[in-house]
Amino acid sequence: MPRYKLTIEYDGTPFFGWQVQEDAPSVQGRLRAALADFCGEAVLPYGAGRTDRGVHATGQVAHIDLTRSFPPFVIRNALNNHLAPEPISILTVEEVDAQFDARFSAVQRHYVYRISNRPAFLALDRHRAWYVPQPLDDEAMHDAGQSLLGRHDFTTFRSARCQARSPVKRIDTITVQRDGHVINVSVSAPSFMHHQVRSIVGSLRLVGEGKWSRSDLEEALAARDRTRCGPVAVAAGLYFTRVDYDVGEEASANVSK
Amino acid sequence: MPRYKLTIEYDGTPFFGWQVQEDAPSVQGRLRAALADFCGEAVLPYGAGRTDRGVHATGQVAHIDLTRSFPPFVIRNALNNHLAPEPISILTVEEVDAQFDARFSAVQRHYVYRISNRPAFLALDRHRAWYVPQPLDDEAMHDAGQSLLGRHDFTTFRSARCQARSPVKRIDTITVQRDGHVINVSVSAPSFMHHQVRSIVGSLRLVGEGKWSRSDLEEALAARDRTRCGPVAVAAGLYFTRVDYDVGEEASANVSK
Repeated sequence: MPRYKLTIEYDGTPFFGWQVQEDAPSVQGRLRAALADFCGEAVLPYGAGRTDRGVHATGQVAHIDLTRSFPPFVIRNALNNHLAPEPISILTVEEVDAQFDARFSAVQRHYVYRISNRPAFLALDRHRAWYVPQPLDDEAMHDAGQSLLGRHDFTTFRSARCQARSPVKRIDTITVQRDGHVINVSVSAPSFMHHQVRSIVGSLRLVGEGKWSRSDLEEALAARDRTRCGPVAVAAGLYFTRVDYDVGEEASANVSK
Repeated sequence: MPRYKLTIEYDGTPFFGWQVQEDAPSVQGRLRAALADFCGEAVLPYGAGRTDRGVHATGQVAHIDLTRSFPPFVIRNALNNHLAPEPISILTVEEVDAQFDARFSAVQRHYVYRISNRPAFLALDRHRAWYVPQPLDDEAMHDAGQSLLGRHDFTTFRSARCQARSPVKRIDTITVQRDGHVINVSVSAPSFMHHQVRSIVGSLRLVGEGKWSRSDLEEALAARDRTRCGPVAVAAGLYFTRVDYDVGEEASANVSK
């Protein structure tokens, strides 16, 4: 039974998140329908991360098992044809060995959070960024962000509904970079908890506005208290951009290009 | 009667172009309605360029005359409040003297055309770029584009419905630059004719695909024959990005920041 790794882009705006739901459109559900149209099988793709309602992806990864073998580019083109006009696009398809698991083989996940920091409302970037009109100090945000690196109890920065067994997680990179009126916050970690990136960005916004110092952020982390988190950043600014796997583990036989 | 210069961003997708129409949504019409809501006057903004249906702007310029004077930031914020949720945003408002005319005072207009050159359909860039799956040689496109610089009869590269009196126009800059899978074609000129940028980009695409050489493009220009133009590029990739005015002519008294 051949296994394939899909790399997927989507506009999260019209979906109630990645995960399949009975009565609401989801990315996973649309993919399952496209797979049924393509090969007549009931195939549920397993994703590297469950993005929330309104969250985008430029590099979500999922794996699927098919009963028959196809050239990867055939799968990609057929799925894209069946997905249209939904804003979901299969970027690449690779054949991988049966040990590859999109979720459990992942060693690093990367998110980018996009803030549009300008006085005027967003027209072209509506549903694509967080509109923050107050001027933000991106350097102070970057500096404060460094205090979250490493292994911590992130109870303050996860949703009260988060189901992760332990609130102790490691964050490897947080960078805050300004490009004109756009501020990109990049966060990389082996894994994330529910609302973790949006909780961190919402708190960094307070630093950017001058309402919090770096030590306020450090104290919020140390408090391990959800009520100490800043207002959570909106979904529309978040992009799931990449997943890293151990080299060699994939044993990619064939890649659609 | 104070005159104001507005710099405007819009997502062209839901509009039948800039120009006001009786029975279809237009950017100019939406702005007129927002101005009426704001000050109770029937004010039609005059734009620097009439963008077509589906064409975007990040720097359209228009001027308006009001009977009463307001601080520029008040005009900007009020218009943006009345425009919401339409994807039109007033970026800046400046008070200018009565000689300033958004259209006739302009000395240079800048457009960027965005091509997404990758195998997979567009999800996040749907309605924001031209999807061209065939690999394009951006360097060949750039080189060929240079042959269009200067003053020429651009009959080949304008719509048959173009109403400009003369087809002789000057183009000052054409640059083709690749950034990953995105190719941006930037074109600057004192003024443009109907479909001129999209006609040029459509023909440059043929060069990028290797179907046309630079001399094929030169011959198409020299033919002054609309039927020699390549297939016109779609509206969704085009952005009206900036308008230049003579320094000093604006006599900006007060700028919203």
